[in-house]
Amino acid sequence: MTHPIPVAILGPTGYTGLELLEILATHPSMRAAYLGSARSEPVDITREFPRLAGRLGDGVSSTTRPIDAHAIARECRLAFLCLPHDAAMKHVPTLLAAGVMCVDLSAAYRIKDAAVYAKFYGHEHTDPVNLANAVYGLTEFYREAIRSATLVANPGCYPTAAAMAITPFLKAGAIRPDSIIINAASGASGAGRDAKPHLTIVEAGDNFSAYGLGNHRHQPEIEQSLRNLGGDAGKAASALFLPHLLPVERGILETITAECADAKMTSERAQEILRRAYSNEPFVVVREDSPTLRDVQKTNRVHINARVVGERTARTRLVIVAAIDNLMKGASGQAVQNAHLMLGLDERAGLN
Amino acid sequence: MTHPIPVAILGPTGYTGLELLEILATHPSMRAAYLGSARSEPVDITREFPRLAGRLGDGVSSTTRPIDAHAIARECRLAFLCLPHDAAMKHVPTLLAAGVMCVDLSAAYRIKDAAVYAKFYGHEHTDPVNLANAVYGLTEFYREAIRSATLVANPGCYPTAAAMAITPFLKAGAIRPDSIIINAASGASGAGRDAKPHLTIVEAGDNFSAYGLGNHRHQPEIEQSLRNLGGDAGKAASALFLPHLLPVERGILETITAECADAKMTSERAQEILRRAYSNEPFVVVREDSPTLRDVQKTNRVHINARVVGERTARTRLVIVAAIDNLMKGASGQAVQNAHLMLGLDERAGLN
Amino acid sequence: MTHPIPVAILGPTGYTGLELLEILATHPSMRAAYLGSARSEPVDITREFPRLAGRLGDGVSSTTRPIDAHAIARECRLAFLCLPHDAAMKHVPTLLAAGVMCVDLSAAYRIKDAAVYAKFYGHEHTDPVNLANAVYGLTEFYREAIRSATLVANPGCYPTAAAMAITPFLKAGAIRPDSIIINAASGASGAGRDAKPHLTIVEAGDNFSAYGLGNHRHQPEIEQSLRNLGGDAGKAASALFLPHLLPVERGILETITAECADAKMTSERAQEILRRAYSNEPFVVVREDSPTLRDVQKTNRVHINARVVGERTARTRLVIVAAIDNLMKGASGQAVQNAHLMLGLDERAGLN
Amino acid sequence: MTHPIPVAILGPTGYTGLELLEILATHPSMRAAYLGSARSEPVDITREFPRLAGRLGDGVSSTTRPIDAHAIARECRLAFLCLPHDAAMKHVPTLLAAGVMCVDLSAAYRIKDAAVYAKFYGHEHTDPVNLANAVYGLTEFYREAIRSATLVANPGCYPTAAAMAITPFLKAGAIRPDSIIINAASGASGAGRDAKPHLTIVEAGDNFSAYGLGNHRHQPEIEQSLRNLGGDAGKAASALFLPHLLPVERGILETITAECADAKMTSERAQEILRRAYSNEPFVVVREDSPTLRDVQKTNRVHINARVVGERTARTRLVIVAAIDNLMKGASGQAVQNAHLMLGLDERAGLN
Repeated sequence: MTHPIPVAILGPTGYTGLELLEILATHPSMRAAYLGSARSEPVDITREFPRLAGRLGDGVSSTTRPIDAHAIARECRLAFLCLPHDAAMKHVPTLLAAGVMCVDLSAAYRIKDAAVYAKFYGHEHTDPVNLANAVYGLTEFYREAIRSATLVANPGCYPTAAAMAITPFLKAGAIRPDSIIINAASGASGAGRDAKPHLTIVEAGDNFSAYGLGNHRHQPEIEQSLRNLGGDAGKAASALFLPHLLPVERGILETITAECADAKMTSERAQEILRRAYSNEPFVVVREDSPTLRDVQKTNRVHINARVVGERTARTRLVIVAAIDNLMKGASGQAVQNAHLMLGLDERAGLN
Repeated sequence: MTHPIPVAILGPTGYTGLELLEILATHPSMRAAYLGSARSEPVDITREFPRLAGRLGDGVSSTTRPIDAHAIARECRLAFLCLPHDAAMKHVPTLLAAGVMCVDLSAAYRIKDAAVYAKFYGHEHTDPVNLANAVYGLTEFYREAIRSATLVANPGCYPTAAAMAITPFLKAGAIRPDSIIINAASGASGAGRDAKPHLTIVEAGDNFSAYGLGNHRHQPEIEQSLRNLGGDAGKAASALFLPHLLPVERGILETITAECADAKMTSERAQEILRRAYSNEPFVVVREDSPTLRDVQKTNRVHINARVVGERTARTRLVIVAAIDNLMKGASGQAVQNAHLMLGLDERAGLN
Repeated sequence: MTHPIPVAILGPTGYTGLELLEILATHPSMRAAYLGSARSEPVDITREFPRLAGRLGDGVSSTTRPIDAHAIARECRLAFLCLPHDAAMKHVPTLLAAGVMCVDLSAAYRIKDAAVYAKFYGHEHTDPVNLANAVYGLTEFYREAIRSATLVANPGCYPTAAAMAITPFLKAGAIRPDSIIINAASGASGAGRDAKPHLTIVEAGDNFSAYGLGNHRHQPEIEQSLRNLGGDAGKAASALFLPHLLPVERGILETITAECADAKMTSERAQEILRRAYSNEPFVVVREDSPTLRDVQKTNRVHINARVVGERTARTRLVIVAAIDNLMKGASGQAVQNAHLMLGLDERAGLN
Repeated sequence: MTHPIPVAILGPTGYTGLELLEILATHPSMRAAYLGSARSEPVDITREFPRLAGRLGDGVSSTTRPIDAHAIARECRLAFLCLPHDAAMKHVPTLLAAGVMCVDLSAAYRIKDAAVYAKFYGHEHTDPVNLANAVYGLTEFYREAIRSATLVANPGCYPTAAAMAITPFLKAGAIRPDSIIINAASGASGAGRDAKPHLTIVEAGDNFSAYGLGNHRHQPEIEQSLRNLGGDAGKAASALFLPHLLPVERGILETITAECADAKMTSERAQEILRRAYSNEPFVVVREDSPTLRDVQKTNRVHINARVVGERTARTRLVIVAAIDNLMKGASGQAVQNAHLMLGLDERAGLN
């Protein structure tokens, strides 16, 4: 076996950082060589997260170090940034300048229009140069660009599922681009590791609720993807995004409706569009039935099913159901998939 | 205190029957006097369900008896039927003939069109005479008819929330009647007490899934309500109903979208429509924010909020979020509410 | 119906305060007239907890007021204190001086030995006079003293279940008093409403863990009860207390072992000891089988079962399983039960 | 890379069989070549369990075949049996005769005393010859015997955690062998895939209960291990086993108490005993604090912590807390660990 490639994880104590450590714990060709944290004191990761004890791999130090671009560059060719949006914008330029490729799991480099970014994230974008060059890391759609990228903006969790579910139908001209409604539900890890009262097991357990109706940060990211990837019809795409909070740790299920462009659309044709779009994709499963959260948890897979309801009526509608694990394909799994391309590794290595 | 009125519960070992026993355990003016079961052997309810031990009230026998209309009539003026659809159609005629008022919690008497019933429930309707006379027990909309009814068809859980959320907007002409999409999610008690593999905690826990997309039995019941209650616009109403299974015991949340009839519709106006519709209703709470499942669990309340998204665009949409407890307002709580009217009791007695 | 008696709830925004509001929402003879909070700004309870909207009862203001003993005394004869331990010790003296009876749900007045209190709670006891007079509110054992008490120290949740399960066997001389081991598990509401990372649904969900092994604050409270209530054998009682955190909202299950004093002890005799101890108790169910959490959630009941394992061996052991709802019989339900006695009301009123 | 070794999974549709498929999906040196089922019709595993779609590996057929020893022998050197106890006793002799090594995940070959087996499992043992030769697959304790075994009896889930937690202290003479009490709690997957009412999410969710108190099938298996592995003190070992059902999918936590042989025993000494026993074990983590279920879920690890409570008293007690994943180290993970030894592979390959 060849020596695993050393990579850096910056911000290893949040959920996406921890998930990267879980993935790399069994990865055949990459290892977590540099754990970088903004905390003032070093953190012993296996002491704070004993689940990782003995699993970081031989020679991997479990103690965090400062985020120092030159120190990182001496040991690693690539860094995963699991930092707040503003911290990402601060560290990406220095890392790139030091020759370290970056996969940024924050939202800092996802929205190409800095004004839209500022509106939804509440602060100005401070790194427009790299924003312009960043490649959006929806792997199945930007594979070639990712291979030669030095900065990949890893997509948001909801936008990953939405873009993969909807894009094939926009490209095929099968749906009306202004009729898309995305009902989505996510496990609570999507809200991050900060403890908030509504996320305790007492209040989030046995519960289900809508939030961010019509004004969630992922709405512009979804629409950007539909417009960029959806062909002619996509250029006019808009989507109503309705997220919900599930009483589970992880997983996203999206039930998406759109009006069919043609009242004679059938379920068979809908499934055929998906099968063609994803026939060679190792991480996409076109399902005969609707997927469930458990089908994809702890995997990097996207499961999708589409059907037509109300055939041959004025409101013939397509109903797509897509499921992913928000921490895997929706975050750290896709980040590793992208890093594989950037480093010239097997895209499937160590992913499930 | 006056003597509580004796009533019968037929089928007390399913979830709706058990919920009735819970409600009557603390009810000031009704008591469960006759527990009728189709099982061949008597069942000691408090032995099988020790949670009820000591809580059935003084003088209430915890042992089931056969479903004998004349025996019931000697002790009770009213019976709650928590039986399978076909068993309900068998017992309702004899109970009515014996002078016992019936609140039927099955679907047997809900759908007025027997052909639609047969299509969705898989068997012919065998009691068309009483079907014609049955009053649909959506209390807030049929209160006066219920007061003089002898047979009330207690509404389904999803249809209760849907009709209460949508009807005010149809009556106000505020939405396009063919644009309604109901994304709904229910706790697993809605599937009844039969053990099935996909309902075990191992497979339903941590899970979320769509089912019955576009062909669920509650779809025609919902549309019947919208057409009957929705005024002129309602006559053309159709709805796409998309139910999901939540990893919780109880509660329904429906996130409903419809296109606004007028692009100038506002959230303020939407809330005003709800407040006017329900200003005097003791069990309806018009919320300033979206309700959650926990807000309504173990209560007989409906919580509703509405807002407008995309104001002044071609696709200005109304988003309504409604929550109920499927076993309470969606079944046994509403059944008790209806029985109160039929028996001349305070509609709110013993309900939370 | 007579007019409900007005009472005060001080600290209505924690879990025990909210549970009191739930109980009083349907209580026939008590009402929450004064909601007192230490927060600097008034809180509209139904806005912060919309679940309570429309359920506080006619004439009950949902806005909190300062904790002012004289203002409370003008409206209420009794106050429930759901405050931190030190705040309780501050307010109890002034409330009692103003003529307001107090049911204190904190631990401030439970431990009679102020030195033990200081050791386990980390601060000195500042109200030794009232500590000496306070009656420990384990209703079934101190009923007569509670009737004439002005200050009741409402028991802790774990200690309530432990004392009720073990005491009858100590009094009967059936177990060796130094052999008691209490394995206990509680829902997360027992940890209070502060959001902490280990209590989020992501980290507490699907989890189970031990904590406070051998040094939990409830250990001295349990031993005090065993010594006070356990007859001659009880005087020598000690108990190893091993609490665990369950991934549920509410409920406590304790599986208790002790060596039998007599190797000829039988399960039949053990059950007979329980039945005799609790034959007239409305809130105690002596079970033929082991109780479960769901049997008691949202009720004020204690379910207990005992059996003997290893009959006629050197280590013949008694195994007792007891279940309560930590927020009901373990806190607010028992507090209401005690208030009933202090106010001369039916002990069972409004409790389930 | 060398070619992965083909192995058979017999009974791939239960939870242990499915877990083996999950493990082998990413295993570097073994592959599931033969899926054998007793069902009369072939089952397409990826159709019935879409979670596995695309993950069984290249060249692995997802369709089950009959359990035919000669057909298996042509393709595989080793079979994992995930069958009912009696089916295992039927197939093991023919598989061994055909030259196929067996790792049996049922209880058929665990209890060396056939009379004890018959008493606890309700049927006679029909294969005493192989029972005598079977090696008990508690890997850390029988490693050398397993290397040369042809039949390994894979341990039960509770017994794995119990033996690993207790044995070091028995061998060290640190505890009284008749004072052991094992309080254990398991996720519901331990009860298998059959749907039963008490295992539905409605009834098992939010619940916690004791079962099999003092008469569980794993009690004799635990005691056999303590006697075989516990040195001189172990020969007299008995244990009171008190299992509970948790509202989670997977994981076992055991909180074990025993009286210390020496009142001067300390927590430091207890931890030292554990560290020495497991210093070179890749799958054992001796923890400074108590482990939780989440620390070990989806891993093959055992986490253990021990402490002394009541030092220098008459009842100085050891409290050990151990956690495993019942489907991994408690079943399929340990089965793979054993197969590695039997096949001469790296013991840690593909395990987490």
